[in-house]
Amino acid sequence: MDLGTIVGMILTAVLLSGAMAMGVGIGPYIDVPSILIVFGGTTGALLIAFKVEQMKNFVSILKVAFNPPAHNPSDIVKKMVDYSTKARKEGILSLEADADKEENGFLKKGLSMAIDGNEPEIIRDLLETDMDLTDERHKANADIFGKIASFAGAMGMVGTLIGLVAMLLNMADPSAIGPAMAAALLTTMYGAILGNTIGGPVENILLIRNGDEILLKTLIVEGIMSIQAGDNPRTLEAKLLAFIAPSQRVSQFDK
Amino acid sequence: MDLGTIVGMILTAVLLSGAMAMGVGIGPYIDVPSILIVFGGTTGALLIAFKVEQMKNFVSILKVAFNPPAHNPSDIVKKMVDYSTKARKEGILSLEADADKEENGFLKKGLSMAIDGNEPEIIRDLLETDMDLTDERHKANADIFGKIASFAGAMGMVGTLIGLVAMLLNMADPSAIGPAMAAALLTTMYGAILGNTIGGPVENILLIRNGDEILLKTLIVEGIMSIQAGDNPRTLEAKLLAFIAPSQRVSQFDK
Amino acid sequence: MDLGTIVGMILTAVLLSGAMAMGVGIGPYIDVPSILIVFGGTTGALLIAFKVEQMKNFVSILKVAFNPPAHNPSDIVKKMVDYSTKARKEGILSLEADADKEENGFLKKGLSMAIDGNEPEIIRDLLETDMDLTDERHKANADIFGKIASFAGAMGMVGTLIGLVAMLLNMADPSAIGPAMAAALLTTMYGAILGNTIGGPVENILLIRNGDEILLKTLIVEGIMSIQAGDNPRTLEAKLLAFIAPSQRVSQFDK
Amino acid sequence: MDLGTIVGMILTAVLLSGAMAMGVGIGPYIDVPSILIVFGGTTGALLIAFKVEQMKNFVSILKVAFNPPAHNPSDIVKKMVDYSTKARKEGILSLEADADKEENGFLKKGLSMAIDGNEPEIIRDLLETDMDLTDERHKANADIFGKIASFAGAMGMVGTLIGLVAMLLNMADPSAIGPAMAAALLTTMYGAILGNTIGGPVENILLIRNGDEILLKTLIVEGIMSIQAGDNPRTLEAKLLAFIAPSQRVSQFDK
Amino acid sequence: MDLGTIVGMILTAVLLSGAMAMGVGIGPYIDVPSILIVFGGTTGALLIAFKVEQMKNFVSILKVAFNPPAHNPSDIVKKMVDYSTKARKEGILSLEADADKEENGFLKKGLSMAIDGNEPEIIRDLLETDMDLTDERHKANADIFGKIASFAGAMGMVGTLIGLVAMLLNMADPSAIGPAMAAALLTTMYGAILGNTIGGPVENILLIRNGDEILLKTLIVEGIMSIQAGDNPRTLEAKLLAFIAPSQRVSQFDK
Repeated sequence: MDLGTIVGMILTAVLLSGAMAMGVGIGPYIDVPSILIVFGGTTGALLIAFKVEQMKNFVSILKVAFNPPAHNPSDIVKKMVDYSTKARKEGILSLEADADKEENGFLKKGLSMAIDGNEPEIIRDLLETDMDLTDERHKANADIFGKIASFAGAMGMVGTLIGLVAMLLNMADPSAIGPAMAAALLTTMYGAILGNTIGGPVENILLIRNGDEILLKTLIVEGIMSIQAGDNPRTLEAKLLAFIAPSQRVSQFDK
Repeated sequence: MDLGTIVGMILTAVLLSGAMAMGVGIGPYIDVPSILIVFGGTTGALLIAFKVEQMKNFVSILKVAFNPPAHNPSDIVKKMVDYSTKARKEGILSLEADADKEENGFLKKGLSMAIDGNEPEIIRDLLETDMDLTDERHKANADIFGKIASFAGAMGMVGTLIGLVAMLLNMADPSAIGPAMAAALLTTMYGAILGNTIGGPVENILLIRNGDEILLKTLIVEGIMSIQAGDNPRTLEAKLLAFIAPSQRVSQFDK
Repeated sequence: MDLGTIVGMILTAVLLSGAMAMGVGIGPYIDVPSILIVFGGTTGALLIAFKVEQMKNFVSILKVAFNPPAHNPSDIVKKMVDYSTKARKEGILSLEADADKEENGFLKKGLSMAIDGNEPEIIRDLLETDMDLTDERHKANADIFGKIASFAGAMGMVGTLIGLVAMLLNMADPSAIGPAMAAALLTTMYGAILGNTIGGPVENILLIRNGDEILLKTLIVEGIMSIQAGDNPRTLEAKLLAFIAPSQRVSQFDK
Repeated sequence: MDLGTIVGMILTAVLLSGAMAMGVGIGPYIDVPSILIVFGGTTGALLIAFKVEQMKNFVSILKVAFNPPAHNPSDIVKKMVDYSTKARKEGILSLEADADKEENGFLKKGLSMAIDGNEPEIIRDLLETDMDLTDERHKANADIFGKIASFAGAMGMVGTLIGLVAMLLNMADPSAIGPAMAAALLTTMYGAILGNTIGGPVENILLIRNGDEILLKTLIVEGIMSIQAGDNPRTLEAKLLAFIAPSQRVSQFDK
Repeated sequence: MDLGTIVGMILTAVLLSGAMAMGVGIGPYIDVPSILIVFGGTTGALLIAFKVEQMKNFVSILKVAFNPPAHNPSDIVKKMVDYSTKARKEGILSLEADADKEENGFLKKGLSMAIDGNEPEIIRDLLETDMDLTDERHKANADIFGKIASFAGAMGMVGTLIGLVAMLLNMADPSAIGPAMAAALLTTMYGAILGNTIGGPVENILLIRNGDEILLKTLIVEGIMSIQAGDNPRTLEAKLLAFIAPSQRVSQFDK
């Protein structure tokens, strides 16, 4: 669970509703038809813009933003150094039991292919194709939130225009103008809030999490290639640690 | 038929017309001259910006958004595994009847070239040239909708400025100002609706469908190369399944 | 002559002037100083932003948008198949007379180099350098129109601000406020019209026409290479047809 | 310490507060709730958009903008020419003591690997992986400030909308309208100031500093490769000086 | 001296000041505090966003826009054909005196390296590194003007907001509202003028001049390689002319 996302959402919600409460109270800022226009209109535009399968994953994609799959590159490096040491001593076939127990699906797949004796070029091709397509799928998922940012803004503007036109046609009672215009502005406000606390930020964190996953997979591919080539475990570790931020690099051999 | 697109359009239309009806009724939001400025002006700008041949395909391009050609990558993988098995047993010439019956034009073309004994390098070159140009054509088509989004917004603004100038020159009767300004805002509203429920979203779904088709063609090229090279059907299947989302990967050999 | 561009411009002009005529007549929308600010200011910004040589070609670039050079890829393919057949039968030197008569300058240059016996690698290098620089020159030309779109919008805004300031300093006579503000808005309107019926759309069509020309040149380079290598005319045709949209592919050998 | 950044911030602060003071005094421009909405809301959006680890480094990233690590490419070139001369005379192992004392961590790492007798290809791979990931981390850090620019603008707009709605609902007292609207505009002003004096400019200087560091590391990689290959120190110097701006190139051999 | 830039600036200045003079005279458009906010604030943001060294070159960068270094590609081609002819007849060492007198620094450096007998691969690497870094430095310089465009717009908006707040707090005297609002709008006007007559256009012309220089350097690198390889001067000329626009290609051998 990533606390940042939760804390960020709560902080923004508290500040904005506090700002509303300080003035005229939260009540006037809540308008069900306006909410329907912005949220419904954005949903409608998303349904046109994306495939049904992509929209069905909406909730599970959102979950990744809040609760990312735990990837610890240092642990993976440590494990691959162990595999490498074992493979050098007892042969690569000795890793069969380890591959079966391996929890990281991508590492498991790579190890199994190496144990089955596939050509290095084929293993690399296959793992990289898998990795590239995962990357594309994740970016397409993040783009749903990018599009929320732009569609929500547009629907907010459309709602405000609908409200302004209605107001302009009913100016007989001057005292009604203020509230009518206030109501018209609410959709723009909802659009800006939806776009800038959900749309843009969630798109960004999803792209960052994808970057982390792709980096980890690149590291795993290099590791598998090294294990299969029978590289020295120290060389393998040096190669893989280059993928980790300097502050988090810990060598098993320096101890 | 992709229900998402239809449902999205209906949802947006119902919500926006509902929002209009709740205020002053739908009537005041319908203004034929304003519709002509935005739709006609956008059409005019598109006719300048694109070739006549591209505009002629407008309706068939729009259909792709609603009713995409059925591409099932899993079926194609299954079929290619069958072809590969047959080619290994009975020789590649045995696939001639299959190639004739093959419904996917791209797969058919590739198979025929392989059966005719062309060099692998030539087959790959030719299929990839075909694929790259299809990709460019589709992107150019999607761009028509991208340009709708930007031209519709601009024409909406031009219409509003035309209306505002007329209103500002006729301020003798204060009671006419409201309705005149309301009418002026309608073009901006039409532009925003056209751009954000047709322009942007349709551009996006067309790009997604093109991505799917190009991925399928990449998979087919790899498969043809593997069949011609006489690869083991299991290896071929492993290669091709890497192009499919993990959740949809089904191996014929795991049964 | 491309009718689309002409029709698009007439359609937009008719619609916008019709919209003006319906309200207060076209007269109030025509203001010479405002036209000077927007068109003159945009011209000034373009003169700063581009080289004098580029601006001198302005009219001939604009002509390309309306009256594109006729490129028929199918005819070029047909001609290259003929050249290839002749070269196979009578030797490449037999094409000398054809090269002299060839109207497409790029094809002529390539053929002559092949007839002169230059190394394939040198021919390809030279033709591709020529093609790449043509591509860059065309894109730089199209960018003049892209910049018109952005400078016209900015100059329109500057003109409106100049007018608003004048209006705000002269509010003694309330009846003058409306017309003064109307006049101030005209520059924004001119900027939006110039930018969205000339700037953006002409930039787009120039980029499309350049894309067509570059594709044709790529096809010609492949064809020259094939002719020089003595490829089978059927193979050459198959290669070149891959560059053409499926709907327009016609083989001479299928007849 | 880079004086430019400090001077720029002071200059902007003095000018803007001077402009405020000249009118109604600085007092009315300071509004704690508005500051909370813009700064707090931007912080909230950043917490959603980035990982907690990245946000924790916020202060140390900001320090890099003000106080960049001293990289003097000319000194590094001079040092590498000395290493190269020594390695040619006394063998690469003679550099062991120099490597231990070397202050630049990247150069130290490369030298040590060369002294340990690693394959050139492995050294290059490892150093380039390290360099590429440093580049990505720095760009991700700079992006935090890029996002500040966009989120601050959006939160400013949300705050203004909240204030406008409150104002529109309280128009009974006309004399309160001005101050209420003034207060509503403050958040937009804070957003624009935060985005354009911290967000955008700091993002830019961080990207420039990263560019300098990556260039220096590229130079170091080329130098290490040259030292290991036993290149002539003059050749090495010529190679490395090409990475330095002509005005700062000083050769040790021209003296 | 490029007349276009000067003419463009004068044209824009005359038109805009004419437009001001026609209304209320130029006087009310000149406001020193507003000028300070926009020009000073933009300078402040630039000082934060760029390194002090880059800002110090500001004037010399601006000069390049007005007075570009004379690069005549045709002359360079002519000269290189002469060098090539001489090198073929009298050996490459005969070019030593020519290299000493050569005015183009890049050509001089390349020739000297070739005369000194360096490996072609090393010459190419060194010249290309030099060229790539020149390209990056020039783009970074042009970016200063790109950032002027965006910072000037933002500072103009901040100034207008400061003025609007002051105006809204002083609405007791209705006759003061107009002039106060007019003054507030001036900063937005200055920002738009600065951004669109200096910022954007100068950025563009600097990028174009850089493109010309890089193209010339690419041509020089190819020429040096050809001279060193002892290519036929006609072949060398054909290669180099491909880098020049067709309308300016003149062969020495066609005479």
